Amino acid sequence: MYQSKDREHLAFERILFFSDAVFAISITLLVLEMKVPAIQQEFSELQLGYALLQMTPKTVGFLISFFLIGQTWIEHHRMCSFLGQYNSGMLWRNLWLLLFVAFLPFATALMSEYYFSRVAICVYACSFAGLGFAKASFWYHAVKTHLLAKDIDTTQASRISRRVWATPITSFAVVIAAVVGIPYAYCGFTLIPFAAVLLDRTVVGK
Amino acid sequence: MYQSKDREHLAFERILFFSDAVFAISITLLVLEMKVPAIQQEFSELQLGYALLQMTPKTVGFLISFFLIGQTWIEHHRMCSFLGQYNSGMLWRNLWLLLFVAFLPFATALMSEYYFSRVAICVYACSFAGLGFAKASFWYHAVKTHLLAKDIDTTQASRISRRVWATPITSFAVVIAAVVGIPYAYCGFTLIPFAAVLLDRTVVGK
Amino acid sequence: MYQSKDREHLAFERILFFSDAVFAISITLLVLEMKVPAIQQEFSELQLGYALLQMTPKTVGFLISFFLIGQTWIEHHRMCSFLGQYNSGMLWRNLWLLLFVAFLPFATALMSEYYFSRVAICVYACSFAGLGFAKASFWYHAVKTHLLAKDIDTTQASRISRRVWATPITSFAVVIAAVVGIPYAYCGFTLIPFAAVLLDRTVVGK
Amino acid sequence: MYQSKDREHLAFERILFFSDAVFAISITLLVLEMKVPAIQQEFSELQLGYALLQMTPKTVGFLISFFLIGQTWIEHHRMCSFLGQYNSGMLWRNLWLLLFVAFLPFATALMSEYYFSRVAICVYACSFAGLGFAKASFWYHAVKTHLLAKDIDTTQASRISRRVWATPITSFAVVIAAVVGIPYAYCGFTLIPFAAVLLDRTVVGK
Repeated sequence: MYQSKDREHLAFERILFFSDAVFAISITLLVLEMKVPAIQQEFSELQLGYALLQMTPKTVGFLISFFLIGQTWIEHHRMCSFLGQYNSGMLWRNLWLLLFVAFLPFATALMSEYYFSRVAICVYACSFAGLGFAKASFWYHAVKTHLLAKDIDTTQASRISRRVWATPITSFAVVIAAVVGIPYAYCGFTLIPFAAVLLDRTVVGK
Repeated sequence: MYQSKDREHLAFERILFFSDAVFAISITLLVLEMKVPAIQQEFSELQLGYALLQMTPKTVGFLISFFLIGQTWIEHHRMCSFLGQYNSGMLWRNLWLLLFVAFLPFATALMSEYYFSRVAICVYACSFAGLGFAKASFWYHAVKTHLLAKDIDTTQASRISRRVWATPITSFAVVIAAVVGIPYAYCGFTLIPFAAVLLDRTVVGK
Repeated sequence: MYQSKDREHLAFERILFFSDAVFAISITLLVLEMKVPAIQQEFSELQLGYALLQMTPKTVGFLISFFLIGQTWIEHHRMCSFLGQYNSGMLWRNLWLLLFVAFLPFATALMSEYYFSRVAICVYACSFAGLGFAKASFWYHAVKTHLLAKDIDTTQASRISRRVWATPITSFAVVIAAVVGIPYAYCGFTLIPFAAVLLDRTVVGK
Repeated sequence: MYQSKDREHLAFERILFFSDAVFAISITLLVLEMKVPAIQQEFSELQLGYALLQMTPKTVGFLISFFLIGQTWIEHHRMCSFLGQYNSGMLWRNLWLLLFVAFLPFATALMSEYYFSRVAICVYACSFAGLGFAKASFWYHAVKTHLLAKDIDTTQASRISRRVWATPITSFAVVIAAVVGIPYAYCGFTLIPFAAVLLDRTVVGK
């Protein structure tokens, strides 16, 4: 009933929708780390407000990770919009990429809990750098094995080839910044999404 | 293998399915806040019934949030059915919208736990208002940057432009109601979905 | 860029994929109720084996709910394969259906914990009956508002109209059975999926 | 509005996307078993590093399960790319397969917690073997009831028929290995994904 071409399209779509689902679950699981504060019996509005204020590191961690994963999804979305085919190697590289995406809720929880610790920040930055390298390896594999569609804008594709290094390099800079001083590391994290938006606008135009 | 037009359609579909997945996960995670009551050893049916009755605030919170998120999904679904294109700005506005969707399970849990607290109700109402504003910004961006398809019913589209303010405005009214008295705030929440259904019928017709 | 017909198809697909996602998450969250047993320090293989055996009610609850949700998904899948359109009323009835799907992990957890309690079994059976009624209301709404496609096999459609009552009626029978004696209720639950498979075969043929 | 052929395609796609969602959720829920370590007040970087090191069994369990589920998804993806139709029996066999997928996060958590226990390793290996058998039954059902598309490469299809036995047989070997000695069992697990990649390359070529 299904034509060969339809089946191929469907198989390609499944890869994207499976990836989307993993991104979506990972980005939504982040909120599970935000636990409702348990306060003592003698309840007052002030105490609850104070307890919520103490959750600031968790909220900031949630926001940073949400936008980092979201931005990675947008990049993945753009990369895949250039692909016209898939192969076995791409499936496995995509799985590596998703491994780091699925791991990020743990790394976020660790950093939110021990936000004053170099070890926790390094674990987080390393897992984000791993995601960046997996993304780069995904893209370069696609380019090398000629998975890009024939009718794409090659200037755009070569721009992606350069831009794909932005996150892994920044993440490594954050690891080094954490060794120098923890505040520098946080500045680094907060800058990544903003830098990405800016880069996004200058690179893609529209 | 993939034509340029097919790729573009696929890229558009991914945005919708990614959003759907976040909505679906968030709406289903709400139930995780409902913990099975732990009752003492000397067990009786009455005690379990009583323990379940004491979960009423959690159940009500689950129901309110379920229908508020569900209604937001239906609005997102309608808005997107008018779009014929996407751009980078829409992706980011959509991500902001999803941030509030993903945050709602925490806000719901907080309100269910501290249902007698003005602070908790305000956090909930604010996060729902944030969702409303993100939704409005999503829609007005789409209108401004000409993402609407050419062959749509423009009367419908301009109705959406008016209707999109319903939730953010009602949510802010709830914040004010909470300051006056908590019962008013709850009436406000319970009315939103009913109001939305009514508005829906009067606005869209069929 | 998108034609009117394409946009309509996409809007219809989103409803199905959103529902699929809720079903899929709900069916997978069931496993979160199965907690790894915590056993004392002086560890022996026998103790772990015994602790796992004591999880039998949880495992049985997981299996029953998995197949009941799975069977509901299959029914939803068949119903929707007859639809050629959607309307606002269908969206809301679908949301009601999904409410009960999303609630089932809690009902399952409750029944698994208090498997010897009439109250717990009644809550479970009632929520499953609610799911059944929502499903029936979904289908009859589709029939009444002429959402069925023109070129369908009407014998099949009228068979579904009869078959759709199987789960709500059986679930109410289980509520009554629980009052008579708890073992009867469990027999009822275990029979639903088997009955459904048999019914499925006799009804649909292929 | 929908043509009969479109509706059939959509019904087929839903099966795949529902399966994808279950795979995606299961693979992402694995991370929930990784809990952030709670360390005492007198905090030092070394203690956190040491606490993270003690999580090695959990991390290894996460990695093994991630790649085993990922590899199963890739196999499911390949199998389904040969199908041109579906029937009721396939839906139920697919549901069995998904049951084991949804169960794996629990089996992983059990093995990660009691990694030195034969019982835990056997439960894990058995559930993975069950997944393998469900997969084989899914494929042989598809072949027997002529669900394969007419225009496929039959050499590839018959290769899958042989390859599909790889995981259930290896898993049973692991059960036996666990009886002989636990280290052998772990070697078995770690080898499965590598073996699968190798097999994948030799079997499918491209």
